[in-house]
Amino acid sequence: MSKTTIQDIARVAGVSKSTVSRVLNGTAAVNPEKKKAVLEAIDRLGFKPNLIASSLAGGRSMTIGVVTQLIGSPFYDTIAQGVVAELHETDYSPIFADGQWQATEELEAIQALMGRRVDGLVLIGGSLPGDEISDLCGDLPTVIVARQFSGRGNICISMDNELGSYQLTKHLIDKGHRKIAVVRGLEHHRDATDRFDGYQRALRDNGIGLDSRLVYQGDFSAESGMAAVDNLLAEKVEFTAVVAANDLTAFGVRLALHHHNVAVPEQVSIVGFDDQLETSFTIPPLTTLRQPAREMGSQASKALLEMIAGNNFSSKVFQGELVLRESVAEIAR
Amino acid sequence: MSKTTIQDIARVAGVSKSTVSRVLNGTAAVNPEKKKAVLEAIDRLGFKPNLIASSLAGGRSMTIGVVTQLIGSPFYDTIAQGVVAELHETDYSPIFADGQWQATEELEAIQALMGRRVDGLVLIGGSLPGDEISDLCGDLPTVIVARQFSGRGNICISMDNELGSYQLTKHLIDKGHRKIAVVRGLEHHRDATDRFDGYQRALRDNGIGLDSRLVYQGDFSAESGMAAVDNLLAEKVEFTAVVAANDLTAFGVRLALHHHNVAVPEQVSIVGFDDQLETSFTIPPLTTLRQPAREMGSQASKALLEMIAGNNFSSKVFQGELVLRESVAEIAR
Repeated sequence: MSKTTIQDIARVAGVSKSTVSRVLNGTAAVNPEKKKAVLEAIDRLGFKPNLIASSLAGGRSMTIGVVTQLIGSPFYDTIAQGVVAELHETDYSPIFADGQWQATEELEAIQALMGRRVDGLVLIGGSLPGDEISDLCGDLPTVIVARQFSGRGNICISMDNELGSYQLTKHLIDKGHRKIAVVRGLEHHRDATDRFDGYQRALRDNGIGLDSRLVYQGDFSAESGMAAVDNLLAEKVEFTAVVAANDLTAFGVRLALHHHNVAVPEQVSIVGFDDQLETSFTIPPLTTLRQPAREMGSQASKALLEMIAGNNFSSKVFQGELVLRESVAEIAR
Repeated sequence: MSKTTIQDIARVAGVSKSTVSRVLNGTAAVNPEKKKAVLEAIDRLGFKPNLIASSLAGGRSMTIGVVTQLIGSPFYDTIAQGVVAELHETDYSPIFADGQWQATEELEAIQALMGRRVDGLVLIGGSLPGDEISDLCGDLPTVIVARQFSGRGNICISMDNELGSYQLTKHLIDKGHRKIAVVRGLEHHRDATDRFDGYQRALRDNGIGLDSRLVYQGDFSAESGMAAVDNLLAEKVEFTAVVAANDLTAFGVRLALHHHNVAVPEQVSIVGFDDQLETSFTIPPLTTLRQPAREMGSQASKALLEMIAGNNFSSKVFQGELVLRESVAEIAR
C-alpha cells in the first residue's frame, strides 16, 4: 500500500496542499494547469487518492473517532482539547460524534464513527455500560476517559474522585471545622457516589460521626446548591462549612448564603470540585480540587496510539490537586 | 440506488439495529445465526451495506460535517447543541472536526470532513476568511454560524453584537450613568469591534462624549477585566459603570472591584455579554445580554437542510435579549 502523502504530491506538483485536497475532493474549481500537475504527480507517485477507498481495501483511515458529550461541563471540553492536542503531533486526525449523555445517542455515535472506519475510539464520559461498549467495539482499540469500570479489556483513563473529596473534607477538618454539610451530586452517578464516599471517609478518619441532617441530595446544578442552603437554614441545622459536589453547586451555595446575609468564609466556608475557569473569579475565589482534564485527554490519545501500534496499555487513575483560594477560613476548635 | 435502511434489514432479519451494524462493521463478534439472518436480509433487500461505498457511487452520505472550536466559550458549545438537536429530528447524522481557532487547523478540519463526503457543512465560529471558505467548499452547501461577512454565496447565521452592546450601554444611561468605562474584547475580532461600536453609538445618541481614558483594550479574558479596573483606579479615572466585552471579563471586573473594596452595584454597576450559565450565580447576579446560541445552532441546521434540498436560504441575524439582574444600580443624575 502506498505511503505517499498529500504533502508529497503537493511538492512534486509544485502546488499547495490545499490545491491537492481540492483536486482530490473534486468539489471546488481548480486552475486547469494546476489540476493537471496534481493528477500527473498522483500518477507518478502511485498515490491512492481516497482515504476511504484505501480504508475499504483494508488499510488504515488514519482517523480517530472521539465521542463527546457536548451538554457537559467545561471539564469535558478540556478533556477533548487534550485529546485533540495530542493527536495533532501525529498523522492521525480526530473526528467527533456526540452522545448527549444519552445511552442511545452514544450507541449511534459510536456506530456512526465505526461506519467511517476509524482506527480507534476515545469515549469521553457517557453512560453506556462497559460490557455494551466491549460488545460494540470488539477488537477496535478503544479508550474511555472520565469513567471507571472493570469491563472486559476496557481501558479507562479516570480520576480518583473519592480521594479528591477526601482531601477537600480533610482540609476543612484541618481548619477546625466539624459541622460540615455536603451537597451530593446526581444520584447513582459514579463520580457523585465516589465523592460522597471520600467525604465520609474523612469524617470517619477524624472521629466525626455522619449527621444525616447535614447531607443534601443535589444533582451537580447550582440550583441544588441554593436549595441545600435554604433547607439547612430553614431546618436550623448548624454548619460552618459546605462540601459542594462540584464548582457549579458551590456557586449556588455561595449565592444562597449571600441572600441570607451569611458571610463567606467568615461564617461559612465552601469548597468546590473541578477548578473550572470561573472559580478564580468568584467572590471570594473558590477553594476547590483541580481535575487534570487536559492531561487525561492527552493520556487517552497516547494510550490509544499505543493500542493501535499493538502495544499493551493499562488503565490509569489520575489524582486531582487541591487548589487553595479564599473560600475557607480557620475556626476556633 | 437502493433506499433500504439498516432498520429495514433489522426488521426483515428479526434482529436489532445494533446487530445489523455489528455485522456491517465486522468489528465485533455476532451470533452466527443472527449474522446469517442479516446477510440474507441484505441479499433479499438489495442493500448497499457501506454508506461510504454508496457515497463513492454518487449517493448521499447522510452526514453533516460540523467544524467546532473546542477552545471556545460555553456560547460555542451551546450553538453545537442546537445544531445536533435539530439534526436529530432528521435522517442526517453530524460528525465533527475541530478548528481550535486556528485558520490552518480549520482548513484541515474542513478538508477532513469533505474527504468523508459530507452532504453539507456547518462552521461554528472560526477565523478562516470568507473567500477562502467559498473557494474550499465550492458547491458544497455550507452555513457559517456566529460570524458575519459578505462572501460569495456564504450563508451566515449571526448575532447583532452592535445592537446588543447598544442596549446594554443605553440601559446604564437610562439608570443615570454617564461615566461609563468599557473593556474591549480581542483586538481585530469582529464581535469585539461591533460591541465597541454599539457602546459608542449609545453614548452619541445620548449626547455623551467618548472619553478615551474610560476605554481599555482587553481580550475577552477575566484577567483583562481585572487589569482594566486596576488601571482605572491607579489613574484615578472616575467611573460609575463598566461595560465588559463578555461575561468572563465582567467576572474579572467584579473581582478587582472587590479587592479594592468598591461595592457592586452601590458604587459601580457592571454589565456583561453572553448570559453564560454562571452569571445567574455571581455576587451579585450579573445583568447581561443573552445570545440565542441554541436557536442559532438550530437555525444553522435548518438552513443547511434547505440548501441540501435545493431551496434558497438567506443569511439571518439574531438579536440578543437584555437580561436584568442585580449588578446595575440607579444613580442620581
